[in-house]
Amino acid sequence: MKNDRGLLFVVSAPSGCGKGTILYEILQDKGFYYSVSATTRAPREGEVDGVNYHFLSREQFDARVAADGMLEYATYCGNSYGTPRKEVEEMLDAGKNVILEIDVQGAMQVKERCPEAILLFIAPPSVDTLRHRLEKRGTETAEVIAQRVAEAEGEIACAPNYHYIIVNDVLEVAVSDFRAIVRAEQLKVRSAK
Amino acid sequence: MKNDRGLLFVVSAPSGCGKGTILYEILQDKGFYYSVSATTRAPREGEVDGVNYHFLSREQFDARVAADGMLEYATYCGNSYGTPRKEVEEMLDAGKNVILEIDVQGAMQVKERCPEAILLFIAPPSVDTLRHRLEKRGTETAEVIAQRVAEAEGEIACAPNYHYIIVNDVLEVAVSDFRAIVRAEQLKVRSAK
Repeated sequence: MKNDRGLLFVVSAPSGCGKGTILYEILQDKGFYYSVSATTRAPREGEVDGVNYHFLSREQFDARVAADGMLEYATYCGNSYGTPRKEVEEMLDAGKNVILEIDVQGAMQVKERCPEAILLFIAPPSVDTLRHRLEKRGTETAEVIAQRVAEAEGEIACAPNYHYIIVNDVLEVAVSDFRAIVRAEQLKVRSAK
Repeated sequence: MKNDRGLLFVVSAPSGCGKGTILYEILQDKGFYYSVSATTRAPREGEVDGVNYHFLSREQFDARVAADGMLEYATYCGNSYGTPRKEVEEMLDAGKNVILEIDVQGAMQVKERCPEAILLFIAPPSVDTLRHRLEKRGTETAEVIAQRVAEAEGEIACAPNYHYIIVNDVLEVAVSDFRAIVRAEQLKVRSAK
């Protein structure tokens, strides 16, 4: 009846939904492990191997993919990014709850390959709210904001493919909702339909 | 994305597991409705129709069953007990979360007839703990306690057929676990597999 193995949580959110802040809070809780992605891109100044990313050569990355060693991966602008399977499995076996912070495409790959993964989508209260938040930041041009909003709409359209949707209106509520999902999933009977 | 309809929770527990106390706490929360059972047995002194039970004649009860008007029912010592479907549906439609406090057999009937029902089993930390609790009460004879424990073992064997198992070791934790399940189920995407 007891689940000694950790749970695998996949978290996606459009840019500007406060995902980082929510995950920061959750990762303060005991028993969580944040999965570090692998990438073929060169480290930027200050980035530490194994902390920001696992920096792999193209050959190393491709060899991992070929050996089914990536839970999901994608290539942007010639650089590949992926989630190393081995580390995730080891942490789950050690009873840790693993958090993968990945995009919608990656989440769908993980859903396919790990049916036990629990997919959480963090959504803004509305697209208008998201636009306002991005405008208030004042760090992006109108064009970039329009692009972010359009991307968000595409991502929100994928939310029904997730298991849970957390609407981040009030941060404390969103964090409490995340914790409720974690607890409920721990109490869930895995054999039940 | 929003579930305006209430959720249907089915709660079972062996005798002595603190189910009544947990449900008392949960029913203080907003938006819950405790389903009142129907029965053919005569009201006892002080029992109020519609509060303790809906008291029905044998003809009324059988007519409801024939019209598919009971979500589950059973007969003990010649008296029938059941959950009237209409009232439950009305409360769910009104957005209330409905709690059915029923036994394992009833829960399995509801699972079959209402695939959307969420089944919670409240378990003791161990059968030994349950035996100790019953002995400490001092209200039952050794024979009755032995019978209760044997019944509990049979019920616990059915727990894997429930969706969630709450172990009632510390009351506050059990109530908090119940609330976490309710919240998570509210955040769940119903269309997702």
